[in-house]
Amino acid sequence: MTQKRSVGTVETQYFKIDKDMKLECGKKLGPITLAYETYGTLDKHKGNAVLIFHALSGDAHAAGYHKGEDKPGWWDTSIGPEKAFDTDKYFVICINVIGGCKGSTGPASIDPKTKKPYGIEFPILTIKDMIAAQKILIDHLGIKKLLAVSGGSMGGMQALQWAVTYPESIKLVIPIATAVRQSAMNVAFHEVGRRAIITDPNWSGGHYYGKKIPEHGLAVARMVGHITYLSDHSMREKFGRNLQDKDKLDFSFETEFQVEGYLRYQGDAFVKRFDANSYLYITKAIDYFDLTDNNTIPLEDVFAKSKAKFLVISFGADWLYTKEESVEIVRALQRNGIDVAYFNIESNYGHDAFLLDDEVQTSIIKNFLENNYG
Amino acid sequence: MTQKRSVGTVETQYFKIDKDMKLECGKKLGPITLAYETYGTLDKHKGNAVLIFHALSGDAHAAGYHKGEDKPGWWDTSIGPEKAFDTDKYFVICINVIGGCKGSTGPASIDPKTKKPYGIEFPILTIKDMIAAQKILIDHLGIKKLLAVSGGSMGGMQALQWAVTYPESIKLVIPIATAVRQSAMNVAFHEVGRRAIITDPNWSGGHYYGKKIPEHGLAVARMVGHITYLSDHSMREKFGRNLQDKDKLDFSFETEFQVEGYLRYQGDAFVKRFDANSYLYITKAIDYFDLTDNNTIPLEDVFAKSKAKFLVISFGADWLYTKEESVEIVRALQRNGIDVAYFNIESNYGHDAFLLDDEVQTSIIKNFLENNYG
Repeated sequence: MTQKRSVGTVETQYFKIDKDMKLECGKKLGPITLAYETYGTLDKHKGNAVLIFHALSGDAHAAGYHKGEDKPGWWDTSIGPEKAFDTDKYFVICINVIGGCKGSTGPASIDPKTKKPYGIEFPILTIKDMIAAQKILIDHLGIKKLLAVSGGSMGGMQALQWAVTYPESIKLVIPIATAVRQSAMNVAFHEVGRRAIITDPNWSGGHYYGKKIPEHGLAVARMVGHITYLSDHSMREKFGRNLQDKDKLDFSFETEFQVEGYLRYQGDAFVKRFDANSYLYITKAIDYFDLTDNNTIPLEDVFAKSKAKFLVISFGADWLYTKEESVEIVRALQRNGIDVAYFNIESNYGHDAFLLDDEVQTSIIKNFLENNYG
Repeated sequence: MTQKRSVGTVETQYFKIDKDMKLECGKKLGPITLAYETYGTLDKHKGNAVLIFHALSGDAHAAGYHKGEDKPGWWDTSIGPEKAFDTDKYFVICINVIGGCKGSTGPASIDPKTKKPYGIEFPILTIKDMIAAQKILIDHLGIKKLLAVSGGSMGGMQALQWAVTYPESIKLVIPIATAVRQSAMNVAFHEVGRRAIITDPNWSGGHYYGKKIPEHGLAVARMVGHITYLSDHSMREKFGRNLQDKDKLDFSFETEFQVEGYLRYQGDAFVKRFDANSYLYITKAIDYFDLTDNNTIPLEDVFAKSKAKFLVISFGADWLYTKEESVEIVRALQRNGIDVAYFNIESNYGHDAFLLDDEVQTSIIKNFLENNYG
């Protein structure tokens, strides 16, 4: 099913990196497959490419519809004809991160050395490793300079890391609902999820492929994550203390409140589509993210080499990556005389607001791209 | 070990209610044991009694030291000679809630019908049930009117419920860091903890006594709870991105960041002192708490019969029970012409701030009690 203003039916493509990649942890990974999708047409100067990064649970399928499916890509609200990332004008690329479970090489992939899934033998990754793999694909596509890079949450971290690591390769950077480093509170929430997975007996030291999966642990991890993506306000509005399908309490440990049913549903649905080990590896990569390399580089020096223009976006009710943390990005950029526009959108939704069809976000991004294209 | 300004060595006492109590869920519970402690001396008019309520993981041991122990009661910062609840003047009582695991009848107690631990056959409780049991003990002690009731978090809920259910029996009410009803977000966090416990295979349908306990589930529940008791700010200040005992990342899933080690420690320590089923029952009682009985009573009518004076306290960085929720209590009281003082203390600590030795809180409570005593 395709809808109006959609990029229509799309297919995931695969790119193979045959050489080993040296990772930040010191280990090597290879060969590597990258799953990616593209929308729109690359112009003859290869000057209209926009690289989009997904968040923790996302994938390469950012827009349009896979054949036979009626659920669009995760950022279909923002990618398509006349949308924020207008595919009539721009060539949009989205790549599944390494460590993921949606086509790119990750812990569920076969380790060529053992002919078995990597499991927990997969090397620990960082955001730097993720973008290094992306850079190989972008080079392969012959794109010397990306018009823009953008993403929310972990996607925003990748955007910031691109700006720092490949300053010559980007014209525009749009980090959304993110931070220069992962906060202690967010590390803490991730650690709860990881503990839930690792202490699930089905996790079996990470080697559960072909056996029972750690579904309970992963569901609990997703439930706690999901709370942090919403806001107190949005949960009051959406659920309040409404009961699920009865009008009085039944005094049991079954799900009674709508919010409990919603969370349980989110946890159970996630288990069907996501690999528990990928959840471990990707949350760990996020937790390691710190542009100051744990205070070995002063924050004001981090963007010293950047030549890009920035558009930084935060959401007022986002308590996971707060507006204060976006202001920290903006200040670090300004100290280097970098051209930066900053918008805090006063949405009542929490962190997940960037994934919604937010008119303000759409027009800000649309204008920023148009004003700086060509 | 006793310290200066401490109530010294104390002993938990036990009171047995021999008759059955009819619970809000419709079931009966009995006989019931209540564990309680008292500090200070009841005056001859029995007019100086202050009833203190504990929060989720608390117990009757609110102040002083048990023989041979060097850790004082959970609110020793506030209860003792010259402290907020001055035991030179007041007779302070603290009772372990029913459903708990610290001496009062709870799911780990022996069901007289089966001669086995109740386990999950223990009836679902509410805050109203908890205070109904307390009232029987207060009556037994011959106290017709309590000078004051006070507690933070779930303790504050009990204080509010006392004011509503037994309006003739209290002179002063001091609810701290609490709300007129449990919010959707807080139900959600509790549900995550309950799912972690219930899906732990060792939980065994709630009948794990004498066998392996669901230690992993309970530890995860405590970890997520603990994050909500802190604040983003306090975690940044206390832990930041500091590493545990090394100066560089070791790229593994072991605890690396201090905040991870701290949480893991909190989870593991909790498992040694708390019963997983009590965690289920008490969080459920908190989740059911709603003075409007799920909107069947208008909030402005809830306190219609109250004759007490109120002192409401909130903490600025408490995002679990926010200052806005305390303002809601204050407004409901004011609509009934009730004498209420309200203080929001601008602490950087989160919800747990009320348990700390906060000078402002101490002086506010001390003055409120002194000005209204005698």
